[in-house]
Amino acid sequence: MTATSTVSRRRPRRERVLYQRLADELVGLIETRSLRSGDRLPSVRTYSRQKRVSLATVLRAYQLLEDRGYLEVRPQSGHYVSAMPAGLAPSPSVPRPSFAKEEVRIADLAWELLARVNDKGMAPFGIATAAPEHYPTRRLSRILGRVVRESGSAGLVYGSPMGHEALLHQLTRRALAAGLTLRPDEIVVTNGCTEAIQLALRALTRPGDVILVESPSYYGFPQTAESLDLRVVEVPTDPDTGASLENLEAALRRTRPRAFLTNPNFQNPLGFAVPDTVKREQVALLARHEVAIVEDDLYSDLYFGDSRPAPLKAFDTTGDVILCSSFSKTVAPGYRIGWVAAGRHTERIRQLKLASSIHTNTLGQLAIAEYLTGGGAEHHLRRLRQAFRAQVADYAHAVAQLFPPGTRVSRPQGGHLLWIELAPGTDTMALARRALARRIGIVPGRVFSTGDKFGHCFRLNCGFPLRGGLERALENLAELVKR
Amino acid sequence: MTATSTVSRRRPRRERVLYQRLADELVGLIETRSLRSGDRLPSVRTYSRQKRVSLATVLRAYQLLEDRGYLEVRPQSGHYVSAMPAGLAPSPSVPRPSFAKEEVRIADLAWELLARVNDKGMAPFGIATAAPEHYPTRRLSRILGRVVRESGSAGLVYGSPMGHEALLHQLTRRALAAGLTLRPDEIVVTNGCTEAIQLALRALTRPGDVILVESPSYYGFPQTAESLDLRVVEVPTDPDTGASLENLEAALRRTRPRAFLTNPNFQNPLGFAVPDTVKREQVALLARHEVAIVEDDLYSDLYFGDSRPAPLKAFDTTGDVILCSSFSKTVAPGYRIGWVAAGRHTERIRQLKLASSIHTNTLGQLAIAEYLTGGGAEHHLRRLRQAFRAQVADYAHAVAQLFPPGTRVSRPQGGHLLWIELAPGTDTMALARRALARRIGIVPGRVFSTGDKFGHCFRLNCGFPLRGGLERALENLAELVKR
Repeated sequence: MTATSTVSRRRPRRERVLYQRLADELVGLIETRSLRSGDRLPSVRTYSRQKRVSLATVLRAYQLLEDRGYLEVRPQSGHYVSAMPAGLAPSPSVPRPSFAKEEVRIADLAWELLARVNDKGMAPFGIATAAPEHYPTRRLSRILGRVVRESGSAGLVYGSPMGHEALLHQLTRRALAAGLTLRPDEIVVTNGCTEAIQLALRALTRPGDVILVESPSYYGFPQTAESLDLRVVEVPTDPDTGASLENLEAALRRTRPRAFLTNPNFQNPLGFAVPDTVKREQVALLARHEVAIVEDDLYSDLYFGDSRPAPLKAFDTTGDVILCSSFSKTVAPGYRIGWVAAGRHTERIRQLKLASSIHTNTLGQLAIAEYLTGGGAEHHLRRLRQAFRAQVADYAHAVAQLFPPGTRVSRPQGGHLLWIELAPGTDTMALARRALARRIGIVPGRVFSTGDKFGHCFRLNCGFPLRGGLERALENLAELVKR
Repeated sequence: MTATSTVSRRRPRRERVLYQRLADELVGLIETRSLRSGDRLPSVRTYSRQKRVSLATVLRAYQLLEDRGYLEVRPQSGHYVSAMPAGLAPSPSVPRPSFAKEEVRIADLAWELLARVNDKGMAPFGIATAAPEHYPTRRLSRILGRVVRESGSAGLVYGSPMGHEALLHQLTRRALAAGLTLRPDEIVVTNGCTEAIQLALRALTRPGDVILVESPSYYGFPQTAESLDLRVVEVPTDPDTGASLENLEAALRRTRPRAFLTNPNFQNPLGFAVPDTVKREQVALLARHEVAIVEDDLYSDLYFGDSRPAPLKAFDTTGDVILCSSFSKTVAPGYRIGWVAAGRHTERIRQLKLASSIHTNTLGQLAIAEYLTGGGAEHHLRRLRQAFRAQVADYAHAVAQLFPPGTRVSRPQGGHLLWIELAPGTDTMALARRALARRIGIVPGRVFSTGDKFGHCFRLNCGFPLRGGLERALENLAELVKR
């Protein structure tokens, strides 16, 4: 027994050395960017042959790297380098709940950034958008040219407040592919997702009402809420899984909100996706409290994993989940084509759309509908996902290298945004101002919350490939942080 | 003395017979449509030679017809057949002031009409829009095609919330031609005039506030007001000159409004233009009461007279007049390109625009800007004005022929709308429903007011040439009225 046990102890030790060595080698390849986010590793069988080690050794090495976040397994496909493989600092922290109903004030800095959205000299780490080359410019231009030639006066005359039927048809078709059965007559086409959310909130609330949002949440939410005289209550939000059911329930009990405005898939700014089981329970919980959900589903097509996560709307049984989305993050921000699927609130939303902007520009709708009809759109989205996944990894890697120790970085599961948490006490509002003076745009954490919970955080847009001038800009930003 | 006086009496009598006969002859030509709206009459000298009568006789005949509304004088140009020459019933009447702060309810029928805007089988007497052939479809399509090819990704990426500088430049240039000095940085481009008005009202008011409107006024005004929880007070409105200063002052004193939402040029539905002297006094009066003006200037380019009337904004000295307009009545309804010139409220309106819809679609802005750059736009507008002037006269003439005695018809000075007042007690809501069943769209008077002051009136769109099927549709409508 003793001999056996010595032997059995020795074997694992030898094996541990082997798989550890293998793992270190792979980490080296990943950290030097020889292997990049999304790259597929050799199969366990192939790699064991190549490296002349046992299958078990390769499997253990892969498992170790999976545990440490460098690799991820895709069922029936194999091991891939993760979106967030670099030797990262921990995830951002979760602030304590306060459930204060706070009046919203819009930060001037956010306006300044947005006004300078087309300033070519600015490092585009601020606004959540991608490099122009990521959009299907040529294809869309060709399609729009054809639509203009062939549609005669259809693009010029008044259209329906609900939207053009060609686009409504494509939206229901795509929804079905995402596991969602929608009728064309419960959709209203809008001027982007922002109008969709605004109409949804106006349908659900009266001035002075309370809505729940995640914390942090997209700074457009409090802006829109403020413009509608709504009060915002923030639900503490885990950077990896979203608002917990406990926190949501506590907020529902204490504040009697009219709606929960949420961004469950690849949340802006944190990038998490709420697990599907939690989504179902969130929808059921809100339904029990008779509180509607306004779901911002803007980023769902930009997943880093295997498939598009389900929207909350897929779990809706009461018609109280209003889904809002657009093509602004995937196809053409400047076309301003969004939509809202409003369940039992459709009629009211139609009326509000008519009273707000009559209808959405027709040619943009026709062009997007035509674009979605061909197979090119799916191909484009696939490439876009790969690009964003790699870019987010590049930025996260660079932040880990350049920024001071103690910096925390989010682990997005989709989209093209990172949330950076600096040392407590850092004033990112001041940082953003200094950065702006050097033509570097970032969005300071303060605007993602009505309180001052995120004053030491900022959002980093990774929509532009990190090379040349942008690499230097990120270095400069890191220098500003260190000072 | 007696002899002389007899002679002098007899002469005028003979002359009266002559000029009366001449006038009757001209009325005959006009009523049989031999002379049509906009036709120029022979000069007084030429006509006196042709008819072998004195210059004084021709001049008196012309003056008589001018007094009776058949002719109008254009300085340094001559006499023209008026837009509203037919043997018309009197103008619509003015209801008594009530100054009630009424909650607004949107009539279902209006929604039904708007939802069926593209129903080809409907007689388009409802929605205020023109036949597709009135819009510069080919030219705009060519321009948009070129813009799409040449603008690269500029149309696809996010644009400025204020609007594209090319369009802002054209807007300031055109404003200058209308006697209005605007800086590009006080304009925000919007999704049509409706969004402009909505943003203006949101900048000026809080829920529960009162705004003043004309009575009747465009049914979109109470709809937008209702969607913002505003109360509406109607100021009695003369069908030829608009809200009198006395009525406005009374409303200001009694109701403490936050804004006057007005449509001074070719008002929808009445078609009057407020005289310039009254405009100046309206602006001064509102400024004294520190009440802002939201000016809907949508129809100003569609004048029947010599020149574009001044907007209220031209008399603004405090920055409290917010001008709203769009290209939806003149160039391309479906492009959804409008704007707001917001004076001292610009900053707030920019913020609201961003919180409402981020920015307006870029390619539509670029196409309209390019269209305005060439001389073609002025030529198009000239032809459009002529067409609308003739069409409005055709419809007014047909109504006078077909509708029961006692029918009153507005005398628009621009635009393409008529306001028809039927016998008191007529229920135009029921009429509109019966008409809709026969695929004839009209907008019943009730939706132009929060009360029931106009239940016997309706608005008749004259944007489509009155021929073929539309002539028969108008006959059918008249039959329904008679029943």
